[in-house]
This record gives sequence, C-alpha cells and structure tokens, in this order.
Amino acid sequence: MMEALRAHIEKIVSLTDEEFEFVCSHFSSKRFSKHQYIVQDGQFVNYAYFLNEGLVKTFYLDERGKEHILDFAMDGDWITDNQSLYQHKKAEINIYCLKNCETFYISCENIGKLCASLDKMQGYFRKKAVEENIRLQRRILCLLKNNATDRYHDLIKNYPELVRKVPKTLIASYVGVSRETLSRMLVKEV
Amino acid sequence: MMEALRAHIEKIVSLTDEEFEFVCSHFSSKRFSKHQYIVQDGQFVNYAYFLNEGLVKTFYLDERGKEHILDFAMDGDWITDNQSLYQHKKAEINIYCLKNCETFYISCENIGKLCASLDKMQGYFRKKAVEENIRLQRRILCLLKNNATDRYHDLIKNYPELVRKVPKTLIASYVGVSRETLSRMLVKEV
Repeated sequence: MMEALRAHIEKIVSLTDEEFEFVCSHFSSKRFSKHQYIVQDGQFVNYAYFLNEGLVKTFYLDERGKEHILDFAMDGDWITDNQSLYQHKKAEINIYCLKNCETFYISCENIGKLCASLDKMQGYFRKKAVEENIRLQRRILCLLKNNATDRYHDLIKNYPELVRKVPKTLIASYVGVSRETLSRMLVKEV
Repeated sequence: MMEALRAHIEKIVSLTDEEFEFVCSHFSSKRFSKHQYIVQDGQFVNYAYFLNEGLVKTFYLDERGKEHILDFAMDGDWITDNQSLYQHKKAEINIYCLKNCETFYISCENIGKLCASLDKMQGYFRKKAVEENIRLQRRILCLLKNNATDRYHDLIKNYPELVRKVPKTLIASYVGVSRETLSRMLVKEV
C-alpha cells in the first residue's frame, strides 16, 4: 500500500528494501472522507500528511467568514500547517477534503528521528521543503498580479491536472473572481 | 569575517573548526552598495546569499510598472530566488539594497556538495527551508487578510526590528496602503 510513497521518495533518493521498511515504521495511515477536515484553524497540528490519493483545498477563513483559497493538493503532495507543526502554534489555515482521501502521516518528532538516522531522508525532506518554497513564492506572485486572467494562466500552466479535477467555483475563488467572471474569461479565450 | 555565518549556522547545528573551514571553502563574499540589485527579474540567479550585514527589499514589478513588496531581509537572513536558483528559470522578483550590504554567497552546486559531504549542513539547510516555508505562508495569509491594520500588526509582531529599520513608505507598500493611510492608522493607535 505504501508503494506510492516509496515511488514518490525515490524520485529524489533511492532506498533499499530495508531502508524503505525503516522509513515506513515512522508513518501511520489514515483515511478521511469527503467533507472532513485534515487540519482545522485554532487546533494544534501534530503531523505532516502525504496524500496518497485524494483532493484537498487549503483555505483561510477571514473574520467576516469569507473563505480564501491558498492552494489545492492531490495524489503525491504533502500537506500540513508547517508553522503549527514545527513551532507548536495553533493552525491558522484549514485543510478540507474535496474527495475521499488516503494519507500516510508522520509526526514532527519522527521526521527528526528519520532525518537523524538516515541521511537520504534528510536530503529528501530538504528538497521537498525547497520545492514548497518555490510553490509558495509562486502563490505570492499570483496574489500580487492584478490581472485575474494572468492568475488563471499561471494556474493552468503550473497545475494543468488540477484545473481538470477541481470544480470551476473553487478555481474562481483561487483566482479571486466570481464563477461568472471566470466563465466570461474562458469564453473569451475560445 | 565569516564568524557571523558560523554563529548563525550554530543556532541550528554545532560545527568543529575543521568543519567550519570546510563550509567556508564553499562560499565567496561580495559587497553591494545601497541602490544596487542583488537579483533582477529576467536574469538567471546562480547563488543563495547570506546577508551578513545590510537591508534589502524583495519586490515584484507588475506589467504596469507598479512595485509590490514581497518582503524585507536584514542581517542574518538568506536571500535568493529559489525558483531561479534550483529550477534554472529566469527570476521573477527583484532584490534591491536599501543599505550597503555585505553578503556571503554559495552556488546551488556547492549547496549540493556541502549537503552530500556534511550531514549537519544538510540538516541546517533543511531547517532553513522549513523556516522559509513558514515565513512565506505567513506572507500569504497577510496578503489574504482584508484589513490593513491586521496586516500591519502581523508585521510588527513577527518582525519588530524591521519596522524600526525600514522607511514608513516601504512599510505602507508592504501592508498595501498609502503612506498617508498608514500614518492615520498609527495616529489612531496612540
């Protein structure tokens, strides 16, 4: 079952069967149903989750109750609130299942143990953190761009698969326009 | 001269004199004058810079020529465009010196070599990348908050020293309001 995790790790570092078994011993698995929360704001987050299968949205709920979508994640992505996990603060974001999700999760302590005992995994987690930096910076630039059309194009360029999987209403929310405006934008392009 | 870098690294991992000498052999140093660019959009970025002394702003210039401030960095911070450095794409951001800056810089290749030959440095760079993730996520939340007062409070809470060092005009730009609006916000608080 955890072969997908192995394939994912081995895109970055190769592992022997013994090493992979050792890696697995630091993880547990959990399924979440569609509409369940993996992370809720105001709670402490104890794990980083490898999304083996599923689709989630990460969002911030402002004081007026308006939802702002930070990101989506799907098969093969890591999800958590890093600030909560590593600095033991309450989560400020929500991670919500748009489909049934199957996850493998690991505690902050176990990430540390794994990195300390297996250099390859330290390298894996370093490279994943750098990838996350790049993704987050791209999201910041996306938010700063004044033009919704540019934001939409960035999204389809960087995450073509996501645009096919996620409902248009949520894509519109990510881009920061109404569902109707997004439709008009798409019609103009045909 | 590189003792500040050592002190900075040793907040995370301790190094012997020999190890630190080995680390230093992967770095070079460069001074930049006030008003110079360390990174310019459209160029390829070859190095990550440790800012030993100075103050910079990172900004994105939109197609209308409007400047959007992503961040500030000062003594002890790392600066670069990660996407350009690690994925060999052209930089989308600018890093501009607000004061004279003294940097120690390292190439992507040398980061790789250092990580491969010294586990401690792999651990150091992993933890720095995680810190950067947290900082970037905080910036995203800051941008999504509708309220400029909240954004300003986040800034002074997370970077109290920065607010003392950076001109109010730039703080206003970071928060996303005019210099006059920021002044009115500050007057109301007294």
